[in-house]
Amino acid sequence: MTMPIQAIIFDAYGTLFDVYSIGALAEKLFPGRGDALAALWRDKQIEYTRLRTMCSMYKPFWEVTQDALVFSCNKLDLDLTFDAQNTLMGQYAKLPPFPENLGVLRRLQAMELKLAILSNGNPQMLDAVVKAAGMQNIFNHILSVDAVKKFKTAPEAYQLGPDMFGLSAKNILFVSSNCWDACAATWFGYTTFWVNRANAPLEELGVKPDATGPDMAGLLEFIQ
Amino acid sequence: MTMPIQAIIFDAYGTLFDVYSIGALAEKLFPGRGDALAALWRDKQIEYTRLRTMCSMYKPFWEVTQDALVFSCNKLDLDLTFDAQNTLMGQYAKLPPFPENLGVLRRLQAMELKLAILSNGNPQMLDAVVKAAGMQNIFNHILSVDAVKKFKTAPEAYQLGPDMFGLSAKNILFVSSNCWDACAATWFGYTTFWVNRANAPLEELGVKPDATGPDMAGLLEFIQ
Repeated sequence: MTMPIQAIIFDAYGTLFDVYSIGALAEKLFPGRGDALAALWRDKQIEYTRLRTMCSMYKPFWEVTQDALVFSCNKLDLDLTFDAQNTLMGQYAKLPPFPENLGVLRRLQAMELKLAILSNGNPQMLDAVVKAAGMQNIFNHILSVDAVKKFKTAPEAYQLGPDMFGLSAKNILFVSSNCWDACAATWFGYTTFWVNRANAPLEELGVKPDATGPDMAGLLEFIQ
Repeated sequence: MTMPIQAIIFDAYGTLFDVYSIGALAEKLFPGRGDALAALWRDKQIEYTRLRTMCSMYKPFWEVTQDALVFSCNKLDLDLTFDAQNTLMGQYAKLPPFPENLGVLRRLQAMELKLAILSNGNPQMLDAVVKAAGMQNIFNHILSVDAVKKFKTAPEAYQLGPDMFGLSAKNILFVSSNCWDACAATWFGYTTFWVNRANAPLEELGVKPDATGPDMAGLLEFIQ
């Protein structure tokens, strides 16, 4: 078997783990506003990672996520009690995986591909969410941008993958549901797969992931 | 008069010029969707500047703005004809200033403060919008991040101000309606004023502009 792809790296939040599932919990806490809170929280979280990276003001993703929650509740005029904050942050530590993911990961593992996560998350929160999803024995490496104190899409963050595997980025398949992440990984040099769950349009960045599928199962076709 | 502030630098889009005014035009072109298009267009434009800066993939703001428009119409399922695109982009070249701005700028000029713009916009589009607003004789300098090929909030972009004036950032007042811009300029070292027109909550970035006002007129009190 000639296989140029020797390892696969997965984004975590939104790709392996369902970030928007938090909307249901938010809806319980803030009836009628759950979706708005979940969407704004996610947008702010990502925005803060970028601002902090561009300004060399890194702090761990867990804290950035908490900051984004506080801002989002202020903005939406929601009263974030200490209890509600702990409940929502607690949920972040045990986000459910998308339904097909564990099966697909086991198939890829059986093909003797090396598997890793490369995430904005800090190690502690990544360990928690991986365990909660029953994925402890799936990944060879769990890489956190915390090692370089820069969030994606900084090249230093993406470089963690080739460095860890001792492979060139082209021989690593980078998988993300976030189109901006898949595009930036393509700029960086990875072979890329965009899991386009929401049937979203391609970002207009003048770059295109190498492949796209509606869910993780599409990966199995691409890799064979 | 002892005056620690010797120069004032203004952000352009959203601060001097009313970006959301584009919503009215968008509403004419896409009835019922104008506000949604204007808001998404603005968000994507800023997002693309950050992604391109983090990945060293700079291209001029005019083009980034056009890319963001195309994406936003795709996303909202709006048919962006060549005509509509030219109309909307054309409007971007002649955005109206907020009503109080010209008067405030003339008062500041009369106080013999040096005034400049520091913007993500490329020189050509900045020249056009400044002329359209009748502000040709107001500014000592119009600084574009195009000189360093990095968008705000990169430190290299903010550094253009101190370099041009030969002043330390602390002695320059940086004025922006975009809270993220005012916060990042504070991180950089400027004295900062956030024009909080929308009465938005402070971004949760662990930093606070030195002063805030509901419109540009608040500047006159702060500076005296």
